[in-house]
Amino acid sequence: MLQDQLAWRYATKKFDPSKTLPEDKLEAILKAIQMAPTSSGLQPFEVIVVTNPALRAQIQAVGYDQAQITEASHLLVFAAWDNYTEARIDAVVQDIVDQRGEGAAEAVKPYYERLKAMYLPRSAEENHQHAARQAYIAFGIGLVAAAEQKVDATPMEGFDADKVDEILGLRARGLRAVTLLPVGYRATEGDWLAGLKKVRRPLDGLIHEAA
Amino acid sequence: MLQDQLAWRYATKKFDPSKTLPEDKLEAILKAIQMAPTSSGLQPFEVIVVTNPALRAQIQAVGYDQAQITEASHLLVFAAWDNYTEARIDAVVQDIVDQRGEGAAEAVKPYYERLKAMYLPRSAEENHQHAARQAYIAFGIGLVAAAEQKVDATPMEGFDADKVDEILGLRARGLRAVTLLPVGYRATEGDWLAGLKKVRRPLDGLIHEAA
Repeated sequence: MLQDQLAWRYATKKFDPSKTLPEDKLEAILKAIQMAPTSSGLQPFEVIVVTNPALRAQIQAVGYDQAQITEASHLLVFAAWDNYTEARIDAVVQDIVDQRGEGAAEAVKPYYERLKAMYLPRSAEENHQHAARQAYIAFGIGLVAAAEQKVDATPMEGFDADKVDEILGLRARGLRAVTLLPVGYRATEGDWLAGLKKVRRPLDGLIHEAA
Repeated sequence: MLQDQLAWRYATKKFDPSKTLPEDKLEAILKAIQMAPTSSGLQPFEVIVVTNPALRAQIQAVGYDQAQITEASHLLVFAAWDNYTEARIDAVVQDIVDQRGEGAAEAVKPYYERLKAMYLPRSAEENHQHAARQAYIAFGIGLVAAAEQKVDATPMEGFDADKVDEILGLRARGLRAVTLLPVGYRATEGDWLAGLKKVRRPLDGLIHEAA
């Protein structure tokens, strides 16, 4: 049950560096991320899987020295498109036509032409912000996927994104890091958060009915 | 299984307006949204549940006339905080102390003081954008929760947010609409998308390993 999975997970503060995630569990997380819905199906992001210890040490150094970045089994970096471009949107249309058949083109192409007319004149920054929001949908779903697999994870925004872009060469590929997700297994001790009660705003403070 | 739920769901284009969501299913979706992790646990958003037909007709009129807004059983409006304020962050600290006990204050307060020193000098717009991203995590998890309940849903960004703010009186409450989520049950016919193959970027185009 989703509710149990959400209650089980927490922002892991201390991973056991000796435990490696089995390939099938990593793949389950990545496949959930792949299935996340995004605006107009653009999926305007990539996920970079970082195992290389030297790269991870560099990222930790620009990530408030958070040890999970190097001690977790794998580090996932969610990187959103820096902008929408004609080529990127055309590639999405091509994917749809490839997967649904040539007959889909007639219905689909005018929609994405209107989308290009709307997105391409906007600033790169505005488009990147929009792309980043889509990455956050996938990020949330990736967190659920990890919990379903009983894999620990730490959602992270606290890092110098420009520096991570540099370390991973993301800008040259039209990407900008938006979140980090170390995944692996919690240590049996040394995690100050593990034993604390999960705090959430009561439902009547979070949800309101319109009159 | 999450993967089956993600395969089952789709952006429903035609709801059956005669079918109402049972209270327990709505509550399961709202409770999953409540459990979504957010940056520093701020949960900087609210969800407005709209059933009133007149309000929904007004929202549909500023939402590209998408019929799901009025034909679904319930309309959820995700509205992010317009800004971070001292009072809002202090209320989060109070919630933590209330739920974890007075002993938690010593560890928690300095963290949130640093957060205030970082967030409060920033522009309202920058803070709202950050809050909106947190709402997207909950939005993604809400979509999973709906699918788990076999409830249909349509994630929507295509609407005039300023107008929705006006219709629901959100600005006066320090909120700005960021996404809509009509939830209910698909119609048995009239949904052009229901029969089409779900298209996602192949995994090797979405996921890359850092060298």
